[in-house]
Amino acid sequence: KEDGWDTEPFQLTEKDGNLYGRGATDDKGPVLCWLWFVEFHRKFNLPLPCNLKCVFEGMEESGSEGLEECLKSVSETFFHDVDGICISDNYWMGLERPCVTWGIRGNVYFAVEVRGGTKDLHSGAHGGAVQEPMTDLIKIMSTLVDSATGKILVPGIYDEVDELTEEEKERYERCDFDVASYANEDTGGMPLLSQDKATILMARSRYPTLSLHGIEGAFAGAGAKTVIPRTVVGKFSIRTVPHMTIDHVAECVKRHVVKVFDTLGSKNRLKVNVIHAGKPWMGDLNGYNYRAAAAATKQVWGVEPDYTREGGSIPITLTFEEVSGGKPAILLPIGQGNDGAHSQNEKISRRNYIMGAKTLGTYVYEFSRMTQEEKAKH
Amino acid sequence: KEDGWDTEPFQLTEKDGNLYGRGATDDKGPVLCWLWFVEFHRKFNLPLPCNLKCVFEGMEESGSEGLEECLKSVSETFFHDVDGICISDNYWMGLERPCVTWGIRGNVYFAVEVRGGTKDLHSGAHGGAVQEPMTDLIKIMSTLVDSATGKILVPGIYDEVDELTEEEKERYERCDFDVASYANEDTGGMPLLSQDKATILMARSRYPTLSLHGIEGAFAGAGAKTVIPRTVVGKFSIRTVPHMTIDHVAECVKRHVVKVFDTLGSKNRLKVNVIHAGKPWMGDLNGYNYRAAAAATKQVWGVEPDYTREGGSIPITLTFEEVSGGKPAILLPIGQGNDGAHSQNEKISRRNYIMGAKTLGTYVYEFSRMTQEEKAKH
Repeated sequence: KEDGWDTEPFQLTEKDGNLYGRGATDDKGPVLCWLWFVEFHRKFNLPLPCNLKCVFEGMEESGSEGLEECLKSVSETFFHDVDGICISDNYWMGLERPCVTWGIRGNVYFAVEVRGGTKDLHSGAHGGAVQEPMTDLIKIMSTLVDSATGKILVPGIYDEVDELTEEEKERYERCDFDVASYANEDTGGMPLLSQDKATILMARSRYPTLSLHGIEGAFAGAGAKTVIPRTVVGKFSIRTVPHMTIDHVAECVKRHVVKVFDTLGSKNRLKVNVIHAGKPWMGDLNGYNYRAAAAATKQVWGVEPDYTREGGSIPITLTFEEVSGGKPAILLPIGQGNDGAHSQNEKISRRNYIMGAKTLGTYVYEFSRMTQEEKAKH
Repeated sequence: KEDGWDTEPFQLTEKDGNLYGRGATDDKGPVLCWLWFVEFHRKFNLPLPCNLKCVFEGMEESGSEGLEECLKSVSETFFHDVDGICISDNYWMGLERPCVTWGIRGNVYFAVEVRGGTKDLHSGAHGGAVQEPMTDLIKIMSTLVDSATGKILVPGIYDEVDELTEEEKERYERCDFDVASYANEDTGGMPLLSQDKATILMARSRYPTLSLHGIEGAFAGAGAKTVIPRTVVGKFSIRTVPHMTIDHVAECVKRHVVKVFDTLGSKNRLKVNVIHAGKPWMGDLNGYNYRAAAAATKQVWGVEPDYTREGGSIPITLTFEEVSGGKPAILLPIGQGNDGAHSQNEKISRRNYIMGAKTLGTYVYEFSRMTQEEKAKH
């Protein structure tokens, strides 16, 4: 079809063991898994092993407007007796092995402004006479990250990054992740900095990275415009990992950018702003929430889950921990790595859907048992 | 008024010795100067000193679509007996001294494309794993021009630039040009690379410059978008001067960009394209066309004109020379440097308008006399 779908996106269609439809894996399928678990107990008139409180968010793809405020407003009531949080989002890395997501990166987004005069100039009439803001900005942006390695070149930026442990490294090496299909499908052929599985996974989730996004105020259209822009704003962001702090990252970048600018001999004016910042997050793999998820995965799927960290930021995870007074959060994915969330022909496999309901149900039983043990200890 | 004009732009309004209106100086005023010269001869029943052929262009500000083709199509007919061309465009540098424009810069506009994959990526999900095209492009763009001096850093680019002569330098030093008002008004306060009059004028017109215009394909909007663009195209252009050739400039830039890219260790794909190119142009100050303009200026204004070159490109000048079989062209400006062409409250002074008609008329008489002398010699 014209929209790229092979089926009607808003009519669930089963084909070859897969259920196709918008939201099948992100997140209508996983939400239904929770409801089937409840329905099972209703049907057989069984009590739930513990109280289950649900937060359904239908606007995650539109910035979850109001969700944070809403959660904070019921921190003392709805959340007062919560022992842990399980978020249904994210997917397995590959097709075979279930995973547990125990970390997400933070993000510090910078806008570096170089201001020249009050008006754009014609490069024919004035080029050569003026100090062009673009020249300065491009020089600054060129000193931030290395092309060949992807290493961030801002001094001090790695100071707060946790040391890699042997155990952690082994976890990445064990992951169900296919480099070839990642290179061909997921990245659309954009060249990889490394072909090594563990290196790729760590670069995407347990190390910081810096991406140059673009320039506001410069000519961005097609064709040939001969403009000297009066003010340009370079946009780049640093994905952060535990235990990098927003303050330290911002300070390192500001110090570096100012230093580079000072060497340019420019009379333009410089401003370095942080326009968005979110903290990284990491769960405690030895805590009851993760032990419960691991036990459930083993019982239902017969394997130890992969332990993955997410490269992007899901800041609501931190909010849930905060409003529940620091209770542990976990992301327990149901769908496979090729489900195609946000894309055409999104699907969830029948198998993952059914086993997903079992996994979440077993998780609740394990969670209930482990929190009771935990409470008995004290 | 809301549109920034103090008068009705399309109703000529006289105020304090100035005639205000859209096109007053660019170029309705100068066009009328030519017509007054003809009208004078009609009124007094005098023969013109030579045949006068006019080309009126009403679409110069919209790319002069079709003009070049039109001129070329009448090269053998309309232009077959033309001895020289006088273009009414451009303005004096300052307020007091008339000028003759005897050169314009060329322009070679580059689009350097760095192509990664087939789709834009999320910097959270994939940042760290991929070689980002933006990183490569920014590195390349940072090696093109020096911030502090404005010098082009592409090896070989100055090879074909004419040596500066003492006479030329003196001509710039003599020019009626006020650095302070240029810095405050014309450039909107964008810092100047030099405060020296002759240096500024030469940097704007007799030396090449390189301006970085922007990047196509990168994020250019307001706010914070966390994208890794799949393909980015850096736009920059080099204003060229005699006797730089398009081929040499293109070759130098291509060689340099490829060399820099090779040092980056990138697996992205690079393309260097010239998307627009126009030659520089310079008239012969000793030829009859320039001697005629200088003589007319001296008779009407009582002074030797400034000899200026234009930083921008008026490629139609080259076309006129070409279609007339290499006959000399000149730009003989009428309006003052503060007339505000293209801007609100555009004006031409009564004095410049009236003296302009006299200047152009006297120029035609001098031109006629000198070409006859020239022909008598052969």
